[in-house]
Amino acid sequence: MSTVPTSSIQKNTHAHPADASDNVGIVTPKSMTFDTPLALASGDVLENYDLTYETYGTLNANKSNAILICHALSGSHHAAGYHSYNDKKPGWWDNYIGPGKPIDTRRFFVICPNNIGGCDGSTGPASINPKTGKYWGQTFPHMRVRDWVHTQARLADTLGVTTWAAVIGASLGGMQAMRWALEYPDRLRHCVVIASAMNLTAQNIAFNETARQAIQADPDFHEGDYLNQQTLPKKGLSVARMVGHITYLSDDGMGEKFGRELRSGSFTQGENELVEFQIESYLRYQGKKFSQTFDANTYILMTRALDYFDLAREYNGSPAEAFKHAQCQFLVLSFTSDWRFSPERSHEIVSSLIRADKDVTYAQIDSAFGHDAFLVANQERYRALFNTYMQNIEIAP
Amino acid sequence: MSTVPTSSIQKNTHAHPADASDNVGIVTPKSMTFDTPLALASGDVLENYDLTYETYGTLNANKSNAILICHALSGSHHAAGYHSYNDKKPGWWDNYIGPGKPIDTRRFFVICPNNIGGCDGSTGPASINPKTGKYWGQTFPHMRVRDWVHTQARLADTLGVTTWAAVIGASLGGMQAMRWALEYPDRLRHCVVIASAMNLTAQNIAFNETARQAIQADPDFHEGDYLNQQTLPKKGLSVARMVGHITYLSDDGMGEKFGRELRSGSFTQGENELVEFQIESYLRYQGKKFSQTFDANTYILMTRALDYFDLAREYNGSPAEAFKHAQCQFLVLSFTSDWRFSPERSHEIVSSLIRADKDVTYAQIDSAFGHDAFLVANQERYRALFNTYMQNIEIAP
Repeated sequence: MSTVPTSSIQKNTHAHPADASDNVGIVTPKSMTFDTPLALASGDVLENYDLTYETYGTLNANKSNAILICHALSGSHHAAGYHSYNDKKPGWWDNYIGPGKPIDTRRFFVICPNNIGGCDGSTGPASINPKTGKYWGQTFPHMRVRDWVHTQARLADTLGVTTWAAVIGASLGGMQAMRWALEYPDRLRHCVVIASAMNLTAQNIAFNETARQAIQADPDFHEGDYLNQQTLPKKGLSVARMVGHITYLSDDGMGEKFGRELRSGSFTQGENELVEFQIESYLRYQGKKFSQTFDANTYILMTRALDYFDLAREYNGSPAEAFKHAQCQFLVLSFTSDWRFSPERSHEIVSSLIRADKDVTYAQIDSAFGHDAFLVANQERYRALFNTYMQNIEIAP
Repeated sequence: MSTVPTSSIQKNTHAHPADASDNVGIVTPKSMTFDTPLALASGDVLENYDLTYETYGTLNANKSNAILICHALSGSHHAAGYHSYNDKKPGWWDNYIGPGKPIDTRRFFVICPNNIGGCDGSTGPASINPKTGKYWGQTFPHMRVRDWVHTQARLADTLGVTTWAAVIGASLGGMQAMRWALEYPDRLRHCVVIASAMNLTAQNIAFNETARQAIQADPDFHEGDYLNQQTLPKKGLSVARMVGHITYLSDDGMGEKFGRELRSGSFTQGENELVEFQIESYLRYQGKKFSQTFDANTYILMTRALDYFDLAREYNGSPAEAFKHAQCQFLVLSFTSDWRFSPERSHEIVSSLIRADKDVTYAQIDSAFGHDAFLVANQERYRALFNTYMQNIEIAP
């Protein structure tokens, strides 16, 4: 007989999704250290930092097929594929990155870095500050969207990518894509902005502030010094994530998925027992899971970057004036049920681009999935539009 | 000269709003003890309880002019007027209760009780359990909307009110008003349901659950036993209130009131300083203030009652079948920018009433004030409609 362990035999009979023809497969994160000091928008200087990133596909000879993916609040460099055959979940945008998918890795060389300030490998609050030998925690400098754009430009330099075929991002990622078009107008040919906005509304800032307050109210937060105190503000981060999670889904979508279904208890038992709705246990589970893997200081830093972002601030508050500096073509997408980054916010982007006389394609996608729609598979119109736009991007051979 | 103290002289020159001709003036809460055991929907029995309430106006000879006001999540019996000349704020619905106001105390005798389970005088988690000599805390029985309706009916009995001219409530109060129409169909002539719903959506339940989790995550919560432990879960309750507060306001209303205005800091100082938006300090202030005066267990109990409420549950899930039992006339009001109890939820109530062949008047009020609109003064159409409906209520002399 054979010496192959049982698990391998199982693998052969039940193919792992990493082996599917439209999947980028097993991927390994890369890391790069940057030793040139980085001047930040806050006025601080980061002496050196690591950037963790993944790449999918192959850079062509004249380096004209590179795509930059900018991640959102809780994203990471792991956008597609699997890290191992033990992984149950692929990268966060696996539905849209891969062979034959809208961001087609047969044509494009795709790079997705973890933003600095993040907690998935790149230098951030959960890293050791070399000057003190302790975790950065809340002493890590504040980040603004342009800081990430600058680190992404440096990464492009080291990879020899002068011009991106496209810079693509959703939500906070879309803010980075737009900032790219203003900071380095001659370094991208297309800018894809999905479910984003030129700045946050007071309501959005309010939700972010509530999330931060939930984290800071946790006695294990220790004013952000929890890693040095060998603890984690899990309960606070869990509540913060619950607040966020509700706002990323639509009311209707939640209703369809959960309705008023009970998980336990009954309305008719006549006992003083707690009735529990499905939505409650779902949210608690999501909050708890997130709080075990994500860094609370990073969550605060990322929500602050969202709050601070204001595309047109240094252009006399005029988005059209800002976009006049852009040279690329734009694709802007929004989702009908997204109430945190509503279609109206995308309309503002589009009309500013039109006033700036820029080339823009816009579509508002009918979807019940709220802000999270940009991640969700099986949305035909979204996929078709995204796919067509990407296929029409020319690549010098 | 005179011996009148300075404060009295000031009072004479700067009239207190309690003295305004359309104000009910200085009011004193009343309290009543009920010793007959109350069977609760949960199956528990409350052996005895106190009910604190206020009344405005005068009960007429044939007791046909009594109005019941049902309060919402964070309301109390103090609906109108002032408790003393030192009070800066009047009762929560002072804008709409008083001489010449829609709920006109020249015509009506108005009663507003604090619901049991509350924390403003009526028996609740913050009261002493006579059996143990300790604060009830989380051992206080769960409340459902019908329990409050039953206690309100007992209160009516003691006051000799056989039939209410109207039962009126907004939000959770509207749920009580609707339940009144089904539980005691012959004891009310009008039912006024403002910014309410026949049950909560999954999203609403999710917001409530997040608020509860925030409270329970506070180490000072002690599983609800904080009063016996001589502490208060202020931070958790503050976050809970922040979550609620955002959802009671509209996105546009918040934008108009706060926009992206800064309270401190500047985007251009080039320092690693925290920029603070007005909305942040406003929310933190509101949360903190609330957490010092409201009982956290009551907040949990009230949100649970909201979640549990399902008008038609015992009527085969058919609201029309439920409303067939009603005998009164209905006024239903909703506000365009209310996204937590949206106009669509009021439309459901209205169409169910129409299917049940009931007399219903409905208006959707244009308002930027979100769910809180029902409290806000200076909304002409709301005031005019509400006023006209109330004036048309006949009172046998």
